[in-house]
Amino acid sequence: MQRRRFLHRLGTGALAAGATLATPSVALAKKTFRWKMVTAWPKNFPGLGTGANRLAERITAMSGGRIRVKVYGAGELVPAFEVFDAVSRGTAQMGHAGAYYWKGKGEVFQFFSAVPFGFTPQEVNAWLYYGGGMELWRELYANFGLVPTAAGNTGTQMAGWFRKEIKSLDDLKGLKMRIPGLGGEVLKRAGGTPVNIPGGELFTALQSGTIDATEWVGPYNDLAFGLYKAAKYYYYPGWHEPGSVIECFINKAAFEALPKDLRQIVLAACQAANLDMLAEMTARNQQALETLVQEHGVQVKALPDEVLRTLHRLADQVVEEIAAGDPFARKVYDSYRSFHRQVSAWSGIAEYAFMRARSL
Amino acid sequence: MQRRRFLHRLGTGALAAGATLATPSVALAKKTFRWKMVTAWPKNFPGLGTGANRLAERITAMSGGRIRVKVYGAGELVPAFEVFDAVSRGTAQMGHAGAYYWKGKGEVFQFFSAVPFGFTPQEVNAWLYYGGGMELWRELYANFGLVPTAAGNTGTQMAGWFRKEIKSLDDLKGLKMRIPGLGGEVLKRAGGTPVNIPGGELFTALQSGTIDATEWVGPYNDLAFGLYKAAKYYYYPGWHEPGSVIECFINKAAFEALPKDLRQIVLAACQAANLDMLAEMTARNQQALETLVQEHGVQVKALPDEVLRTLHRLADQVVEEIAAGDPFARKVYDSYRSFHRQVSAWSGIAEYAFMRARSL
Repeated sequence: MQRRRFLHRLGTGALAAGATLATPSVALAKKTFRWKMVTAWPKNFPGLGTGANRLAERITAMSGGRIRVKVYGAGELVPAFEVFDAVSRGTAQMGHAGAYYWKGKGEVFQFFSAVPFGFTPQEVNAWLYYGGGMELWRELYANFGLVPTAAGNTGTQMAGWFRKEIKSLDDLKGLKMRIPGLGGEVLKRAGGTPVNIPGGELFTALQSGTIDATEWVGPYNDLAFGLYKAAKYYYYPGWHEPGSVIECFINKAAFEALPKDLRQIVLAACQAANLDMLAEMTARNQQALETLVQEHGVQVKALPDEVLRTLHRLADQVVEEIAAGDPFARKVYDSYRSFHRQVSAWSGIAEYAFMRARSL
Repeated sequence: MQRRRFLHRLGTGALAAGATLATPSVALAKKTFRWKMVTAWPKNFPGLGTGANRLAERITAMSGGRIRVKVYGAGELVPAFEVFDAVSRGTAQMGHAGAYYWKGKGEVFQFFSAVPFGFTPQEVNAWLYYGGGMELWRELYANFGLVPTAAGNTGTQMAGWFRKEIKSLDDLKGLKMRIPGLGGEVLKRAGGTPVNIPGGELFTALQSGTIDATEWVGPYNDLAFGLYKAAKYYYYPGWHEPGSVIECFINKAAFEALPKDLRQIVLAACQAANLDMLAEMTARNQQALETLVQEHGVQVKALPDEVLRTLHRLADQVVEEIAAGDPFARKVYDSYRSFHRQVSAWSGIAEYAFMRARSL
């Protein structure tokens, strides 16, 4: 059981059935830990920022106040894209972000957030908790003095907002689209021009025609940004982010300074938050989708099969190239690829076949 | 935010951001609670029983041993189908089962486990945590002195093992199949003969021809029972159980006797277990499916569309009739139906459309 081994490695032998519980020293049991959680989201940002808030509140409540976690929005303590380094050096004890933000440190980071044509939320959790994914993630982040874990999921995203219809591959040629990361690389190979623009500037860039299209998250978050006022066509499915993991990483020294019960509380709170965020996103996305269609007249459209087929082929190339980068990237890719092949087959006759049957 | 209100009603105001944490009395903070968890599964049964074990271990570890939970397999303290009453009267403090087992107390219970052609795992979590489902569940179980919550999910199940091929609706006529609950009622209306047989007797009943077919769970659990030796055809999708919730219910008086931090620990441990079990089931099902097909030559087949369409129509009738039973059942049905309509639309362009695109 990989999970059992993983927990043991964290020094939580007390989890084994029937084991005698270690009594933490009285001093440690009474100690209050004041932790900072830095996030890559604007303070209270729907779903992501509020998810970070709830995680922090929960750790504080579960620990009876022995860990008090204060949440900082992007820019409050450090900028969004510096939260990894801030927790690594101990400026804060926890970070809440997405692993693809750290691809400057290595392309391999992206496997722990989203891979184009990769895992659904249910599949990525199977890989992380029972398929060896979490152990690889911990191996990678240990190099930076961090303990990573999953603390949320956006669900399958939308392909994005387009000012013009996409009828064939030709419509991607020259298309200037905000789409970061691996998805952007795939678009580039399909003839488009990917750009990266911070979320807060998307609406203006799209409305002014600086960009022709943009992806963001899904109906709940996209409605909040008012993107429907700047582009008419809302395309699905989110081939580039089919189930993006939201991560929580913890400064390793801070984590190891906790007594065992508090370490378990932090990890379990993250796992509960992982489910909780996806549940919220799923519930809010469907409400927001109705609002977009019925109140704002948005046209929801499927990308043509021909386009999806080509993007898939290009995505497989892009992802495979990461594996060539270094031996660790190869190890992660092999684990990902082998699990993906099998779990896709299972999903195909389970959740997928059921949803198909339901729609007949 | 329904979730926030829900937590408040449990008297956990400390969760509100910035609220001062109530200090539990010193006596209560030091007290050790010895709890019994009775389960509807054989001890250590793969996925379900082991999920109960992990949940208990985790509560003990997170609480630093302040709650010590001892798990009992079916029949060890009380029989499988008496765990609800045992926890209701306080013989044990926690129970681990599936709500459809209690349909003798009211058909409405089944909405909190599985509804034919109902929710996927991701959808049911959205309904429970952010769509009002959990509040209705708590209202129902409060009548029995219980606090219910979700603590696992099987994922979409398989339609079952059949000794003969199902080529049309005619093949369901007279079919004697082990399929309990709402699924069984649907089969009956399609001309079949549903029977209920305990899991342990399935193999013999199927091999001897006492029954023509049986559903159980999915590849992981079905492989363990050796059902492939008694029937050749393994059908999908599990229209009758598309995402069965595994429940944990807690004796209300025992729950309220806990200090606030321990109440939070118990609820968060259940939510983490909810994700954890589905992750395990997803990972193990795909491995077991490969074993069944490649080592045991099992023929995996899809139910014909015509059959699925008819079963769906009959299922809608069966489920709607529950609503006619009493005003509370009507309230639950209305909540379920309205959320189901919306969330199916969203899943259709999100996870479903993505999995379709991936398979092109």
